Amino acid sequence: MAPLPSYVSGGWHRPKDEGAPLADAVTGEEIGRISASGIDRGAVLEHGRRVGGPALRELTFHQRAALLKALALHLREHRDELYALSARTGATLTDSRIDVDGGIGVLLSYASKGKRELPNDTVLIEGDVEPLGKGGTFAGRHLLVPLQGVAVQINAFNFPVWGPLEKLAPAFLAGMPTLVKPAAQTAYLTARLVELIIASGILPEGTLQLLCGDAGDLLDHLTEQDAVAFTGSAATARTLRTHPVVVGRSVRFNAEADSLNCSILGPDARPGTAEFDLFVRQLVTEMTVKAGQKCTAIRRALVPARLLDEVAEAAAERLARVTVGDPRDPDVRMGALAGLEQREEVRRGLKPLLDAGRIVFGDPVTVDVVGADPERGAFMSPILLRADDAGRPEPHEVEAFGPVSTLLPYSSVDEAVALAARGRGSLVGSVVTADPAFARRVVLGAAPWHGRLLVLNEEDAKESTGHGSPLPALVHGGPGRAGGGEEMGGIRGVAHHMRRTAVQAGPAMLTAITGRWTPGAPHTRTDVHPFRKHLEELRIGDTVVAGPRTVTLDDIEHFAEFTGDTFYAHMDEDAAKANPFFGGRVAHGYLVVSFAAGLFVSPEPGPVLANYGLEKLRFLAPTFPGDELTVTLTAKQITPREDAAYGEVRWDTRVTRGDGETVAAYDVLTLVAKRPEGE
Amino acid sequence: MAPLPSYVSGGWHRPKDEGAPLADAVTGEEIGRISASGIDRGAVLEHGRRVGGPALRELTFHQRAALLKALALHLREHRDELYALSARTGATLTDSRIDVDGGIGVLLSYASKGKRELPNDTVLIEGDVEPLGKGGTFAGRHLLVPLQGVAVQINAFNFPVWGPLEKLAPAFLAGMPTLVKPAAQTAYLTARLVELIIASGILPEGTLQLLCGDAGDLLDHLTEQDAVAFTGSAATARTLRTHPVVVGRSVRFNAEADSLNCSILGPDARPGTAEFDLFVRQLVTEMTVKAGQKCTAIRRALVPARLLDEVAEAAAERLARVTVGDPRDPDVRMGALAGLEQREEVRRGLKPLLDAGRIVFGDPVTVDVVGADPERGAFMSPILLRADDAGRPEPHEVEAFGPVSTLLPYSSVDEAVALAARGRGSLVGSVVTADPAFARRVVLGAAPWHGRLLVLNEEDAKESTGHGSPLPALVHGGPGRAGGGEEMGGIRGVAHHMRRTAVQAGPAMLTAITGRWTPGAPHTRTDVHPFRKHLEELRIGDTVVAGPRTVTLDDIEHFAEFTGDTFYAHMDEDAAKANPFFGGRVAHGYLVVSFAAGLFVSPEPGPVLANYGLEKLRFLAPTFPGDELTVTLTAKQITPREDAAYGEVRWDTRVTRGDGETVAAYDVLTLVAKRPEGE
Repeated sequence: MAPLPSYVSGGWHRPKDEGAPLADAVTGEEIGRISASGIDRGAVLEHGRRVGGPALRELTFHQRAALLKALALHLREHRDELYALSARTGATLTDSRIDVDGGIGVLLSYASKGKRELPNDTVLIEGDVEPLGKGGTFAGRHLLVPLQGVAVQINAFNFPVWGPLEKLAPAFLAGMPTLVKPAAQTAYLTARLVELIIASGILPEGTLQLLCGDAGDLLDHLTEQDAVAFTGSAATARTLRTHPVVVGRSVRFNAEADSLNCSILGPDARPGTAEFDLFVRQLVTEMTVKAGQKCTAIRRALVPARLLDEVAEAAAERLARVTVGDPRDPDVRMGALAGLEQREEVRRGLKPLLDAGRIVFGDPVTVDVVGADPERGAFMSPILLRADDAGRPEPHEVEAFGPVSTLLPYSSVDEAVALAARGRGSLVGSVVTADPAFARRVVLGAAPWHGRLLVLNEEDAKESTGHGSPLPALVHGGPGRAGGGEEMGGIRGVAHHMRRTAVQAGPAMLTAITGRWTPGAPHTRTDVHPFRKHLEELRIGDTVVAGPRTVTLDDIEHFAEFTGDTFYAHMDEDAAKANPFFGGRVAHGYLVVSFAAGLFVSPEPGPVLANYGLEKLRFLAPTFPGDELTVTLTAKQITPREDAAYGEVRWDTRVTRGDGETVAAYDVLTLVAKRPEGE
Repeated sequence: MAPLPSYVSGGWHRPKDEGAPLADAVTGEEIGRISASGIDRGAVLEHGRRVGGPALRELTFHQRAALLKALALHLREHRDELYALSARTGATLTDSRIDVDGGIGVLLSYASKGKRELPNDTVLIEGDVEPLGKGGTFAGRHLLVPLQGVAVQINAFNFPVWGPLEKLAPAFLAGMPTLVKPAAQTAYLTARLVELIIASGILPEGTLQLLCGDAGDLLDHLTEQDAVAFTGSAATARTLRTHPVVVGRSVRFNAEADSLNCSILGPDARPGTAEFDLFVRQLVTEMTVKAGQKCTAIRRALVPARLLDEVAEAAAERLARVTVGDPRDPDVRMGALAGLEQREEVRRGLKPLLDAGRIVFGDPVTVDVVGADPERGAFMSPILLRADDAGRPEPHEVEAFGPVSTLLPYSSVDEAVALAARGRGSLVGSVVTADPAFARRVVLGAAPWHGRLLVLNEEDAKESTGHGSPLPALVHGGPGRAGGGEEMGGIRGVAHHMRRTAVQAGPAMLTAITGRWTPGAPHTRTDVHPFRKHLEELRIGDTVVAGPRTVTLDDIEHFAEFTGDTFYAHMDEDAAKANPFFGGRVAHGYLVVSFAAGLFVSPEPGPVLANYGLEKLRFLAPTFPGDELTVTLTAKQITPREDAAYGEVRWDTRVTRGDGETVAAYDVLTLVAKRPEGE
């Protein structure tokens, strides 16, 4: 067999040497070979920087999001092929779905968030304008631009599809090209995934490269603009993180390492409760899905001491029903580990755990296997341990990266929190309880040590995605032993691939740089009402000033009667005077904004299709009977949609009274039509 | 002289040995001694964790903010004493104000932001609820809790007051105790600062400690919950960052290192323009303030090639007017460097720079000194160099950390951007231009390499705080050579001291844990209208459901006529039908929210004092004539103010039509009175 090809520098590289063999986890047969010989790793990075980066930075966030969506839909068409290959890694169909469908799900989630939460622009503006001077002539704003290097992924073997995709999606959306380096054991599946992607032609050239084989001197070629995202062991994380180039050039380095995640059963969850069953079911699921080869699996099951026997019994009973064997067999619940070496490592990890506890279920050496050869495939029984002394260090420190968990007793909520912290930093923890007070204490107490915490009970059980599933909308990563990193988390994960820069300037300059109208910048009063302009004709700063209109006491009383809003501040002079803010009867805020709309509206049909909302409305000063209102409406942000005949326009809106005081400030959100074709 | 005391483990530690001498920068006299002998550094950290951390975590963000404000006001009373001591570091009164008043300013800024932008709570909720299931029974939210360790500051010598305070403020607000380790040269000033703080009794014990002297084995005692913020040289940053405990425990490490910051003159800024003068003036200021000992000083002045002679001449002329000498003399513009060693280091740094360019102004060896002995004090002339070959590496790589800058020519905007990037990561850059197109290209091009970018011109010159001043509201830190870190940036800097954790649960549980009502959680319909409850009586989830009220065509027409908002979608059936969103005449959004207010209002005087705004108003479906509106208003967040008789209540508001469809969703913001005393 020829080694797996790598996709580098614009083409498929096929190594000329023999490479190292890769084995089918189920049959032990050779499934492929791997080698990176002949690859100039510095040139690969440079190709990403020179070809992929510029191509990607040409696209807006919405355009990148659309490509991610197209990619997801394309990969969906090829799921069956990926499942079949995935089975050879030892994965059941359920496992493969977590990997394959999970990865596609991340693409779709980022596609959707990119469209909904990011502007149709190449620069991301973060946060509000920061006024930096009292006179309003100096202000600051933060903008995010893509790093101009390559997002280097160094992946683990256990999620050969999800792993690359969950890192690709936020990097791509941010505008950074990716280099995927899969772990050897399952690289054939990642290689096929990348083949499918490249063949689709959906992603611009240079935005995705694949390096099968060892990293070699890859890190020596990193620059200040590159980023490394590593998933794997803490020991490797340490080596990579302290690489002289990573340190010397302050290369962004994100690590996601295995951790000793815990699941805590609440004291309320006695046998017979829904939560007791949920806890046991989840524990067994987490032990057996992917044969326990998940960074997020439950390693420590913390149980009220008086329930320990019953939990052990129920879990053992459930584990006894888990069929181990050929993952292609629909009756099989748990497949093989990724390889024989992996199994040896798990057995080694078991030894210290056995010093601290005893086996409640399973046999580290023998297991009944359905439909496969137990000698050639990397099969192993799930092993549930029980350590009656929860203070022993081993269960909190030793991870056997397979279908292995330990039951540990606790006596109080404080002890449960303290034991959770003994993991010294975990990706995830879960609490199974129906008691909100217990949940709150555990969550707030355990939060400093966890990246994610799941509270499971009858309320969410039906829809819960479970302890072990990182989700694209939520941060993934944990402190301490878990690596101290953070991936995904929605747009946060996009920002990880961008440089945040504070820009200071006068308002007009800040408007020109950010493409957002900034308070204090000039208003452009055009001959045509800005509501009569199509999206393409509208300019940031286009303004309409309308009014004045006097608000009379009759108006206030009439509005009160009409709407039913007869709040005393509008209706009763004496009571209004006693209010600490008004000093007399005032107009309704709703009346002020309604009159403002009446002033700035352009009634005839035209490009403005709808007012779909308001943002940040503040009533800054009272409007008294007799006050004259003037409204100033200024185009602040223009967001054309890629896939519609209109876009969003945000208008800075300010209503002032006769003395110049601002009574209301807000953003009006409208949908504005593009110019019809041919006009 | 006895060595400076350290404030550790609850008391002042006075070392018994002689310690190392510290010299007055102006006279060379011994000003103090320094030693950390006898300090158990592990115990110091543990004191912070066991005493300071818990005390701080008991306080809410608003309470911590109030303490920061009190501290700022206290230190303001002692400014003169600090200025006097600061002069002995070589600082003029202007320099001292940047250090002392700048530091106090950071405290005030964080006090104000804490009160305005953070909840009056101990947990920070970040971002919106993330729905995780279609049925609405499973959702996620991110919360931030303080790290449970110590924020260790390792400071540079150049800002002995601002340095500790800019790091203390966000850590304290976050809920993390601080350990200050000043640089030896100017530790006497930091020690006096800490004495003033401790003596004030404003900060809870254990929340601020001071370690004068070497760090020793300090880092060996760090845990996963500690954080290190370092300011200083890139070489030291590398050593600290790769410390086995920092790496092994994923200790958060933030570095802010010197960088080769540039300032770029726009091609429009010819002699005679305001910008030409601003550029020259700023360059000279940045060279001479703090005798150029600022991480943010301008090291590279990029000038259009055809203007290089004129800039050199104008800058030299201005530099010739800079008086060097005893910083206490009001005529002196530039004081001494921090010490004779520092001066030697600057002279060493000059050598390679002289290989690449020639001196336009100044003499590295001799200087006229006013009122001080040029041999004993660390005085030095400002040195302006000029390198006509901007491609030479030295000016982009060698930093002489003193009053030294190099003029470099450029020919095109692309070249200016490329030269800026040659610094390989800077804390700050500036662009002096009146041309928005040039500014935009430079800012967007240089942003990946910079933490902060200032655009200077006539618009902002009056209020601009200048190239060299980091501001608490903006991020401070740069990529690559600058250390890759990020400090301050308003609440971002607070989040650096907190753990972000994703919590997944059902809506009721999420409400209990976060203290924010979560859509899908139960509504509590109480006998009393929630508007009749004082702040203390109100509970998250308290709800009023009001309506239905039918919206008639008469209502719509009447509202249109009354307000003037006669937009066709409300008035003209045919035109409304042609609109892509409505399919017929619809009610005004403003009418819908006005009617909703009329439904949920409780008119008589009571605890609800005012509706001060709306947030996130979205019109989600049209309201047609004949539709019946019902409004559901639910207490979502309750924020008592520390210093007022009321607090803010945010109400989740949802208006539905007869078919159950939501037509408008928004948050109503109200001020609600606390129960009057005695009631």
